[in-house]
Amino acid sequence: MAGRGVAERRVVKVNAGDGAGAGVRGARDRLAVEEPLELRVAGRPVGVTMRTPGNDFELAIGYCISERLVARPDDVEAVRFCAPEGQPQEYNVLTVDLRPGVPVPDPSLDRLAVTSSSCGVCGKASIEAVTLACPTLAGDGLTVPAGVLAAIPGRVREAQRVFEQTGGLHAAAVCDAQGTVVCVREDVGRHNAVDKVIGWAATERRLPLTGTVLFVSGRCSFEVVQKAAVAGVPLVAAVSAPTSLAVDLADQVAMTLVGFLRGDTMNVYSHAHRVSLPTPAAAPGAAPAADAARAPA
Amino acid sequence: MAGRGVAERRVVKVNAGDGAGAGVRGARDRLAVEEPLELRVAGRPVGVTMRTPGNDFELAIGYCISERLVARPDDVEAVRFCAPEGQPQEYNVLTVDLRPGVPVPDPSLDRLAVTSSSCGVCGKASIEAVTLACPTLAGDGLTVPAGVLAAIPGRVREAQRVFEQTGGLHAAAVCDAQGTVVCVREDVGRHNAVDKVIGWAATERRLPLTGTVLFVSGRCSFEVVQKAAVAGVPLVAAVSAPTSLAVDLADQVAMTLVGFLRGDTMNVYSHAHRVSLPTPAAAPGAAPAADAARAPA
Repeated sequence: MAGRGVAERRVVKVNAGDGAGAGVRGARDRLAVEEPLELRVAGRPVGVTMRTPGNDFELAIGYCISERLVARPDDVEAVRFCAPEGQPQEYNVLTVDLRPGVPVPDPSLDRLAVTSSSCGVCGKASIEAVTLACPTLAGDGLTVPAGVLAAIPGRVREAQRVFEQTGGLHAAAVCDAQGTVVCVREDVGRHNAVDKVIGWAATERRLPLTGTVLFVSGRCSFEVVQKAAVAGVPLVAAVSAPTSLAVDLADQVAMTLVGFLRGDTMNVYSHAHRVSLPTPAAAPGAAPAADAARAPA
Repeated sequence: MAGRGVAERRVVKVNAGDGAGAGVRGARDRLAVEEPLELRVAGRPVGVTMRTPGNDFELAIGYCISERLVARPDDVEAVRFCAPEGQPQEYNVLTVDLRPGVPVPDPSLDRLAVTSSSCGVCGKASIEAVTLACPTLAGDGLTVPAGVLAAIPGRVREAQRVFEQTGGLHAAAVCDAQGTVVCVREDVGRHNAVDKVIGWAATERRLPLTGTVLFVSGRCSFEVVQKAAVAGVPLVAAVSAPTSLAVDLADQVAMTLVGFLRGDTMNVYSHAHRVSLPTPAAAPGAAPAADAARAPA
C-alpha cells in the first residue's frame, strides 16, 4: 500500500515562535493519497468516491454490501479494474460483475451512489431513503470487558501502516471479543475505511460480523452505524464523538455504541449491557455497566 | 443554534482503570445533531446532505455557489423552507429560487449532488467531473505573518459555540489578514461548514473572498480546496493533514495551503510566499518562508 497510498510532496516547515526552533526550512512530507475511484456494477456507473488507493476490491465489495446494492456477498461474481475506452489503465475504475440471475441495482435517484472523500453513503436523494431499515442486532450475545475496549485504540495504532507516516487517514478495524485486531483498513474517507473492512469480511466469508467489535478512529456518524448494522456488527467503538442520529440508530437496531474511547475511559451511548466491568473485590459500590444503563440518569 | 444543533442523550460513563475513578455512572451527554437536509434548486431536488441544523440558508447558498449550481450569488432570488406535500414542516427541505432568466441547473449524472454528513461535494459521477476547473488565485497579494496564522486556531475555538459542548463538530472560519475571525460556522460535515461560511460571504456580498484566510479545524481534502478556490480564497489553513490531491490542486490554482497548524508550527504545502516571518535581528540565518520555498528540498 505504501506505493499508491502515500505520496511525497515538498513542504516548507515554519516555526513562528521565538525559541531556538524558530524559522523555516524546506523538507519533504509524506501525504495520504486521495484519488477518485469510479465504481460500476454490472456495467453501470453507480458513483465516484475519493479514496486512498489500496484494498480497492474490498472497498468495492464492502460498498455494494453496506449500501445494499447486492443482497449477499455470493451475488458478486467478479471484481475487476477496467480502463475507460481509449484511456490508459489508471486503476481508478472498478467493475463489479454479478452472478447470472442476480437483479441489477437500478441507479435511480434514491439509490444512486455519488460519494466523496469523507463519505461513503451518498445514494440517497430523498430524506426517506436516508434511513434504510437495518436488521436488529438484539440476538447477539457479545460481551466485552471495558478494559478490553480500552486497549483497542493502541492495538489498532500498532497495526496501522499509513497513518503514522501521514497523519491523514481514518482507520477502521474489526476486533474479536478479546480485543484482538483481526483486520484494519485505512482511507482518507472514514466511510471508505469501514467499507474496506466489510469487504474484507465478505471475501473472508465472515459476514455477518456476529460477536465482533468495529473500531473507528474518529467520529461516528449515522452512516457508520448504518454500515455496521448491515454487516451485523453488534458493538461499534469510536475514538471521538458520535452524532445524535448515530446514537438514535444504534439504539433502534440494538447496537452498542461506544464513543470517546480514550485511555481508560469511554462513553456508552446505547445497549450498555455488552460492556462489562470486573467486579472489584474492594469496591462494592461499583456496578456493571449494564446496571448503570438501567439506573435513572 | 443551541436549540437544534445540540441534543442530549443518556450515556453510561465507564472508567476501566483500577484507580479512584474506576467504575461506571449514568450521565447525560450533549451530542452534535445530525439531520438530513434536502436541497432543491428551482423546484428540482439536487441532493440530500446530513448536516447539523443551523445557518441552513447559508449552507444552501454556499453549496450552490461552491458547486457552481449557480454562477453568481445574484442568481439566487430566494431561499425558503418548504414542507413536502402532505407532510409536517420539519425544516429539513430547502428550496433555492432563481431569478427569472437564470438557467436551471440540470441534475444530470455528473452534476447530481447527493451528499452525506462528512462531505459536501458529491455531484460527480464521472472521474473527469471531479476536477472542476478552478480560477487561479495568483493575483491575490495577501501576505500573512506566520505568527498570525498560529494564533487563528485559538481564536476560532473561542468563537465556536457548539464544539465545546459536544466535541463532535468541524469548524470553518474566514479570517482577515490580521487573523481576526470574521465568520465561523460549525457542522458534523467538514464540507458543510465550509459551504456555510461561503454562503455567509455571499449574503454579506463579500465574494470573492480576496485577501482572506479560510481556516478548517480538521483535515483538508481536495474538495475543501476546490470550494475555497471557487470562493476566491487565496490561503487555506488546516489543523490536520492535507491529502496529496488537495496539495496538487492548491498548487495548480496558486493557493497557499497550510497544514498541521498547531502551536507555533505549521507546514506550508504550496505557494509559501504568502506566509511571512519577521526578520529576526539576532538570527541572521533565518530565511523568510518564501525563500525557503525556493530552496532545494
